[in-house]
Amino acid sequence: MSKKPKVAIVMGSDSDFPVLEGCLNILKEFGVETSVTVCSAHRTPDRAAELARNAESEGYDVIIAAAGKAAHLPGVLAAYTVLPVIGIPIKSSTLDGLDALLSIVQMPAGVPVATVAINGSENAALLAVQIMSGAYPELRDRMHAYKKKMAEAVDRKNEQLQARLRGAAQ
Amino acid sequence: MSKKPKVAIVMGSDSDFPVLEGCLNILKEFGVETSVTVCSAHRTPDRAAELARNAESEGYDVIIAAAGKAAHLPGVLAAYTVLPVIGIPIKSSTLDGLDALLSIVQMPAGVPVATVAINGSENAALLAVQIMSGAYPELRDRMHAYKKKMAEAVDRKNEQLQARLRGAAQ
Amino acid sequence: MSKKPKVAIVMGSDSDFPVLEGCLNILKEFGVETSVTVCSAHRTPDRAAELARNAESEGYDVIIAAAGKAAHLPGVLAAYTVLPVIGIPIKSSTLDGLDALLSIVQMPAGVPVATVAINGSENAALLAVQIMSGAYPELRDRMHAYKKKMAEAVDRKNEQLQARLRGAAQ
Amino acid sequence: MSKKPKVAIVMGSDSDFPVLEGCLNILKEFGVETSVTVCSAHRTPDRAAELARNAESEGYDVIIAAAGKAAHLPGVLAAYTVLPVIGIPIKSSTLDGLDALLSIVQMPAGVPVATVAINGSENAALLAVQIMSGAYPELRDRMHAYKKKMAEAVDRKNEQLQARLRGAAQ
Amino acid sequence: MSKKPKVAIVMGSDSDFPVLEGCLNILKEFGVETSVTVCSAHRTPDRAAELARNAESEGYDVIIAAAGKAAHLPGVLAAYTVLPVIGIPIKSSTLDGLDALLSIVQMPAGVPVATVAINGSENAALLAVQIMSGAYPELRDRMHAYKKKMAEAVDRKNEQLQARLRGAAQ
Amino acid sequence: MSKKPKVAIVMGSDSDFPVLEGCLNILKEFGVETSVTVCSAHRTPDRAAELARNAESEGYDVIIAAAGKAAHLPGVLAAYTVLPVIGIPIKSSTLDGLDALLSIVQMPAGVPVATVAINGSENAALLAVQIMSGAYPELRDRMHAYKKKMAEAVDRKNEQLQARLRGAAQ
Amino acid sequence: MSKKPKVAIVMGSDSDFPVLEGCLNILKEFGVETSVTVCSAHRTPDRAAELARNAESEGYDVIIAAAGKAAHLPGVLAAYTVLPVIGIPIKSSTLDGLDALLSIVQMPAGVPVATVAINGSENAALLAVQIMSGAYPELRDRMHAYKKKMAEAVDRKNEQLQARLRGAAQ
Amino acid sequence: MSKKPKVAIVMGSDSDFPVLEGCLNILKEFGVETSVTVCSAHRTPDRAAELARNAESEGYDVIIAAAGKAAHLPGVLAAYTVLPVIGIPIKSSTLDGLDALLSIVQMPAGVPVATVAINGSENAALLAVQIMSGAYPELRDRMHAYKKKMAEAVDRKNEQLQARLRGAAQ
Repeated sequence: MSKKPKVAIVMGSDSDFPVLEGCLNILKEFGVETSVTVCSAHRTPDRAAELARNAESEGYDVIIAAAGKAAHLPGVLAAYTVLPVIGIPIKSSTLDGLDALLSIVQMPAGVPVATVAINGSENAALLAVQIMSGAYPELRDRMHAYKKKMAEAVDRKNEQLQARLRGAAQ
Repeated sequence: MSKKPKVAIVMGSDSDFPVLEGCLNILKEFGVETSVTVCSAHRTPDRAAELARNAESEGYDVIIAAAGKAAHLPGVLAAYTVLPVIGIPIKSSTLDGLDALLSIVQMPAGVPVATVAINGSENAALLAVQIMSGAYPELRDRMHAYKKKMAEAVDRKNEQLQARLRGAAQ
Repeated sequence: MSKKPKVAIVMGSDSDFPVLEGCLNILKEFGVETSVTVCSAHRTPDRAAELARNAESEGYDVIIAAAGKAAHLPGVLAAYTVLPVIGIPIKSSTLDGLDALLSIVQMPAGVPVATVAINGSENAALLAVQIMSGAYPELRDRMHAYKKKMAEAVDRKNEQLQARLRGAAQ
Repeated sequence: MSKKPKVAIVMGSDSDFPVLEGCLNILKEFGVETSVTVCSAHRTPDRAAELARNAESEGYDVIIAAAGKAAHLPGVLAAYTVLPVIGIPIKSSTLDGLDALLSIVQMPAGVPVATVAINGSENAALLAVQIMSGAYPELRDRMHAYKKKMAEAVDRKNEQLQARLRGAAQ
Repeated sequence: MSKKPKVAIVMGSDSDFPVLEGCLNILKEFGVETSVTVCSAHRTPDRAAELARNAESEGYDVIIAAAGKAAHLPGVLAAYTVLPVIGIPIKSSTLDGLDALLSIVQMPAGVPVATVAINGSENAALLAVQIMSGAYPELRDRMHAYKKKMAEAVDRKNEQLQARLRGAAQ
Repeated sequence: MSKKPKVAIVMGSDSDFPVLEGCLNILKEFGVETSVTVCSAHRTPDRAAELARNAESEGYDVIIAAAGKAAHLPGVLAAYTVLPVIGIPIKSSTLDGLDALLSIVQMPAGVPVATVAINGSENAALLAVQIMSGAYPELRDRMHAYKKKMAEAVDRKNEQLQARLRGAAQ
Repeated sequence: MSKKPKVAIVMGSDSDFPVLEGCLNILKEFGVETSVTVCSAHRTPDRAAELARNAESEGYDVIIAAAGKAAHLPGVLAAYTVLPVIGIPIKSSTLDGLDALLSIVQMPAGVPVATVAINGSENAALLAVQIMSGAYPELRDRMHAYKKKMAEAVDRKNEQLQARLRGAAQ
Repeated sequence: MSKKPKVAIVMGSDSDFPVLEGCLNILKEFGVETSVTVCSAHRTPDRAAELARNAESEGYDVIIAAAGKAAHLPGVLAAYTVLPVIGIPIKSSTLDGLDALLSIVQMPAGVPVATVAINGSENAALLAVQIMSGAYPELRDRMHAYKKKMAEAVDRKNEQLQARLRGAAQ
């Protein structure tokens, strides 16, 4: 299979971009092809529908959608595609993202959205990688390496803390 | 203006119908023409879009949409029409309707949904009547009468309580 | 019908004015006549009652009321009028506006308040325009234009993002 | 002072009466004169205003008001009187009374409502007794006796449990 | 009755004092004698118990207690006295005061605490004044005057806004 | 690729089985091989770790884990595997599943869990199918068919309602 | 050390006893001496204070306190003793135990309460056993055995499920 | 018994260290031996399991674990040890620590975690001291002294406030 893994990142407002940069960077790090689109479920519903409807034929493997408040975008995209849709609830100025979380995760039976933590943009990328690993075995290898690197980073932080504490104790 | 006031009632699932009967009855009592449609924002998104897109040209004045959980239906309909959309959050088996309330009321700037109380189906009907009263003055008169009747019903309940308490005191 | 559309904006405290400016500006943009009043349901209840009672005869089409905390103002105004009342929950120093949201949206059967998002002042204006469009067809036309403009603004933001991403990729 | 202590109990709906019976019984037990009125802040706002405005001149010492959902009644009554107003949030079919609690307790500065627990109707009565004890010293004596009796009841329950546990241990 | 009205203000931590200054100032404005005590239900439980137990004989009419987090102070004081106890939930660094609110307002049957809004220190003072008005008629007169002044302040704010809007319109 | 799609369903307690039957049935309907295991993150942590560690080599494509209260199971499994893990928050006797939802969805950066609605067992199955469709194209075809059938079911419910309403109107 | 481990179980109301029976049974199973007392922080504050003050000298090792609503009992006992106090939030008729949880767990700095899950009476017993294991090594052994038995019970449930599934598959 | 009391402090991320310093300082003040480890339940699950499994044989008496968001660390450690585990919910950037609180406190039956307040790091230390006092009587003496000192500190703060108020009154 010579096709590259490919993910569509969609956000309801361009003000969500800073949160999504972590997502984009991880996907690039894994060698995943990406597109990033500003597209509102409420202000540009036709474009949202079209984007989701065409995603499969355009070779996308996964859609990642981020939205705040009454965050309908992930669910609306999921309505128009059979691709897995990952939803990122965005924290906005009130209610700490709880509104977005419930609007995304509580999808009725039939149309799931794979929901990650509030502002959990890096986990959305990693989940996309895990999802695509079935069809792109090289991603699974990279994910094993990534997981190992993460553990080592925690170990290193622990060693730094031990050094600091020994220093303080002297 | 010889056109009759006309409201489209839309629900995400036919299991919501019992909650909506109060709404339907009030609208009929006010002489409003109604249609009732089962239409899901997630399972039948195209039909939902079409319904909202055509509502104005089909002579509807207001859309009332009820949905539970991640209740996207009112917002999705509002995306496709300039008619006022009233949203009724439906209480489902978990979270007591709070998920539906936040999914409906917290709409982002640009596309409002006029939200009523959880399961507040009668108030959705009355709000539709108040909204249409601007164009249909006979509705305003009936609303004045309705409001008076409501006050009298409370007064009567109060008198019955007084009678009961006097009875108990003897 | 030569009367102009007219909306009464009422706020419980003058400290809410900054939130309401977005509302006021949109209404003006749509050519709607407005009044803005500071009037408390609790500190000036008689004036609140009078304001609501007279709104219809003074030619108002819609009342927009904003309040925080135990936000009774929209419901209290709705008690005295058959005009549609739009409630804006204001976020205050604790509870992130949830208290105001529940105090406004959970109105008991008989007296609806059309509730918008916490601090959702622009949507209150747009909802008022949609409500008045039945009686003032020119508003419906302007609302169609506004909706189109909004979609174009999202499209433009998307194009700017694409340009930025292409720039970053080079 | 030969006047008897007197409390006005007001409820938004006659369906709240079962919750209020505990309140009524305690007040009677303390020899307090009571009236009970069904009166809605939203459906009979004029009667509510009048009731509160006249309460002082009619010799009432305290007003107890119970309401559910967007529970405006206690705050609305407090707006029209300088008598202490006690608010009882009533649990209704959704949100477990949290909406009523926040609608009652979060009163803005200037117009307090003395809030008790959700469905805390007995405590409303006891609080009224404590409030009136300043002017009616006999109530203070009865309250001391009541408090003693309550402690004895807990002690008795404890003794019964000890007996039961000894019985089970044999 | 030549005794002056007298209120004990108690706070769980001296860090709550800034919130309580509004309370203290209003009570002084009404000519109420006050004491202010730092006393913790958990760190100095004996002193708390003694304070409450002696309050009646020391001539206090009302106790106002403020506390944050698991705010037991008002309820603990109420356990030891028949005087009315007013509880002020203090907002602390997490949960926005909801923990304090529930810890204060949800008192079990038998021992009420008159709860005001989160950080609602001014309303605690006004409620104390209203409570004491039964025994100190001069307080009732001052409360009427205060209520009138408050209404006038809102009216003045409204007039200032009208002037500002007229200025902006020219 | 002649391997069959294969999903491990894991639940923290056998009392969760009734909720998971919908999940199991949908996976079977799609021709997915399944195993169902009772395995607690807290009571049998070693078995949980082993299950997750071996899942990849045993040919599983996805893990679905359901748990209630402090629902650690999905996250704990995700810690030991690079397979996608889907978490189903189970509603238990208190807090309506909110505790389980937050315990599952709020995973820290590095180890995602694809969270579905509270008790959303059918959506977990459908999400698993969507995830595996990348590697098993026949699942994608079946998912398209399933989505079409769902839409038709809603349409049929709508037609039944229309018939019922026409019947009632005659 | 020949003293037996000893735990005081205290509940705010005898209606909490059914929840506490699981706690009592586990402690007995572990050979722990117990007392069970009904004692209210608010209705019998002196007895509560005395109970906690004497617990150490009476040979108690741990206090377990259960209470609902504004659950002050565990914190109040902790104020009077240096023994570890375990708090069990009891679910009551409203708010699903969240009020009791926050009232118990959010203790201010200086006086901790070891809080377990809402109605988590069995875990309170096990935590008490773990706490006392430092001084009573036989409890640690029994706890190891208990933990092993628990794991085996989960394994057995799993085997039963496998058998059931195999049966259903034939 | 010549062994010194010893506590393992474990945190999911080194960014939690500032919150834990209060805990560390109190334990040192009480003469408790401590280790501090960065160890993630999700990123380094094997090390977490090993840490907990070995804690008893390495002479630890108590484990204190702090984590934010979906805070599994305390429960995961508790799964692998019979030592008492104290959990500190850490407030993170959203939801104010409520997610961590519920993820830690709502442990299912069989594996308790002794939960303290959100960011309640000092109380975790004091609870550990109280727990270890059974086996290390010198800790109980120090705890009595600490409790006395705390009360004196509150008394001193009260005296300072009295002095300040007297100063302001002159």
